[in-house]
Amino acid sequence: MEKKDNDYGLENLLLSSNCLSCEVDPYDGIIVDPSCLPTDVNSFIDSLHDSLALWKSQERKGVWLKLPTENANLVFPAIEAGFVYHHAEPNYVMLTYWIPEVPCTLPSNASHQVGVGAFVLNEEGQVLAVQEKNGPLQGSGVWKMPTGLVNQGEDVHEGAVREVKEETGIDTEFLEVIGFRQGHQVLFEKSDIFFLCVLRPLSMTILKQDTEIEAAQWMDLEKFACQPFVQNSMLRKMVDMCMACTQGRYRGFGTRAFHAGSERMPSYFYYNVHDSMEKSIP
Amino acid sequence: MEKKDNDYGLENLLLSSNCLSCEVDPYDGIIVDPSCLPTDVNSFIDSLHDSLALWKSQERKGVWLKLPTENANLVFPAIEAGFVYHHAEPNYVMLTYWIPEVPCTLPSNASHQVGVGAFVLNEEGQVLAVQEKNGPLQGSGVWKMPTGLVNQGEDVHEGAVREVKEETGIDTEFLEVIGFRQGHQVLFEKSDIFFLCVLRPLSMTILKQDTEIEAAQWMDLEKFACQPFVQNSMLRKMVDMCMACTQGRYRGFGTRAFHAGSERMPSYFYYNVHDSMEKSIP
Repeated sequence: MEKKDNDYGLENLLLSSNCLSCEVDPYDGIIVDPSCLPTDVNSFIDSLHDSLALWKSQERKGVWLKLPTENANLVFPAIEAGFVYHHAEPNYVMLTYWIPEVPCTLPSNASHQVGVGAFVLNEEGQVLAVQEKNGPLQGSGVWKMPTGLVNQGEDVHEGAVREVKEETGIDTEFLEVIGFRQGHQVLFEKSDIFFLCVLRPLSMTILKQDTEIEAAQWMDLEKFACQPFVQNSMLRKMVDMCMACTQGRYRGFGTRAFHAGSERMPSYFYYNVHDSMEKSIP
Repeated sequence: MEKKDNDYGLENLLLSSNCLSCEVDPYDGIIVDPSCLPTDVNSFIDSLHDSLALWKSQERKGVWLKLPTENANLVFPAIEAGFVYHHAEPNYVMLTYWIPEVPCTLPSNASHQVGVGAFVLNEEGQVLAVQEKNGPLQGSGVWKMPTGLVNQGEDVHEGAVREVKEETGIDTEFLEVIGFRQGHQVLFEKSDIFFLCVLRPLSMTILKQDTEIEAAQWMDLEKFACQPFVQNSMLRKMVDMCMACTQGRYRGFGTRAFHAGSERMPSYFYYNVHDSMEKSIP
C-alpha cells in the first residue's frame, strides 16, 4: 500500500464497519467482542482480514479472540490467519495474535493446580484417615490424610475444610498451613502447589463418601505414622510437623482476611500469626 | 444396533482399523494419539464416529483428544461430535468426551497463576525498589518491590531470585517465604497465589531492565514504607513482617529439597525451618 493511500484506506476500513466489534484494553491490545462474531465463515474471514489491517495500522499490540463453542467453525480460519491458542475452558477457546515486531509480552495461561491435604487429630490422639478408591494408591491398603484440589475461586482454608467434609462427613475448623510443596509436570505439563493444613475436628461421626473413598476411620496416630508409605522422607517430615503443630511445638501460617478499598470480597493473607503477636482469624 | 449384532459389530470395528489410534489410561479413559490423526476432515469424522461406538461398547470413561495447531481443521467436527474444550497451549487444543452416564470426574485445567514478590534489604538498611513501566502503577511514581510470575516448571524460590536479577541486575540468595496471598478472578477467571519472599543481596550494582522497569534504586526503608501506596492494610502488614524477618523477629518458611525414589529432580517443601530446628537449604 502506498503511503499516500494509507490514511484513505484506513478511513474506508473504519467506515465500512466490516471490522469485528472490539474494544481497546489498557495495554493497547484489542479484545474482540465474542457476542458480535459473524457466524458465516467467509464473512468472518473477510472481517478478520480487514480488522487485522486496521489494528496493525493503529500499532495495536495483542489481539484477544474468544471463540465460544457455538463459533467453533471459526477456529480453523482464525488459526489460518495466524492466531495461536492461548487457553480454553469447557465452553470457549481463547486465541491471540501478537502484532508488534518485538517479542510477545501477553500474560501466559494459568500454570498451577492448587491442592490441599488435611491433618485432623481428635482429642483421643486419633487422626482422620482415608483409603482412596481411584488413582495410584487404589487397592494398596494405604491410609492417608484427606486431600483434594481447591475449586475455582475457592480459598485454600475453605478447600481444606470442604474436602474433609466431602470425603468423611467431619466438620472442621482450619488452624494452620504447616508448609507447602511445589511439584512440576504433574498434569498436562502443569505444576501444582500442595498446602498441608492442620484442622481441628468439630464433629466425630464419619460419613464416608462412596465415589472416591474406599474407607475412612479415626486411626491411632502411631499406627498411621508407622505405615511404610509414610516413611518416604518428605511425607514423614510432613507428618512429624503436623504432630509438632498440634502439640504447640511448631508454628505454621494462620490466615487473616483483608479488605482492600475497591474489593467487595476479602483477600486472605497466610502468615505466621504467632510471631506477629496476633490471633488467626479462620 | 441389535444386541445380537453387538459383538460382531465390535469385532468389525476392531478389525477395520478405521478407529483412531489410541491408548487406554489408568483411569479406564482413552488417549487419542495426536501423531496419527487423519488430516482429511471426512476421514476424521468417520473414524471418530466408529471410535466412539467402540469406546462406548467397551464402557470407557473420558476420551482425551489433543489437536495440534496443524490439525485445527478437526476442531469443529470434534465439537460437533460432542467433544468439549478442556485446555489449550499455544500449539494445541485439548478436547474431552465423557462417556459414562454419571457426572464427569476428569481433572480440571490449571486454576492458578503463581507470583512472587521480593523484599531485598542491604546492610545499609536500604530496600531494592522499582517503578513499573506498564500496568496499573504506570506513571504513579510508586516504588515497589520487584514482582513477577514464576515460569512454567520453575520453583518459587528460583522465580524470586530470577525476577530480582532480571528487573534490577542484583544477585540474591533466597531466605524465606514470609507469607502468601490468594486472589481470585485475577486473569481469565483464574486465581493467583502471591508468595512474599525475603532475599539477601549478593551484589549491589543496579542494572535496570528497560522493557518493564521505569526506574530502580536502593531506597531508604523508612521512605519506602511511608509511601501512601504502602498504607493499604495488607501491604503495610507485608512490609512490617519483611522488616521483622530481617531483624530476626519473624519466622517464615524456608525450603529444603527432598528426593523421592522415582524422581530425578528434587521437590521443594517450604516450612518453618526454625521451629523444626533445622537450617534452610536454599
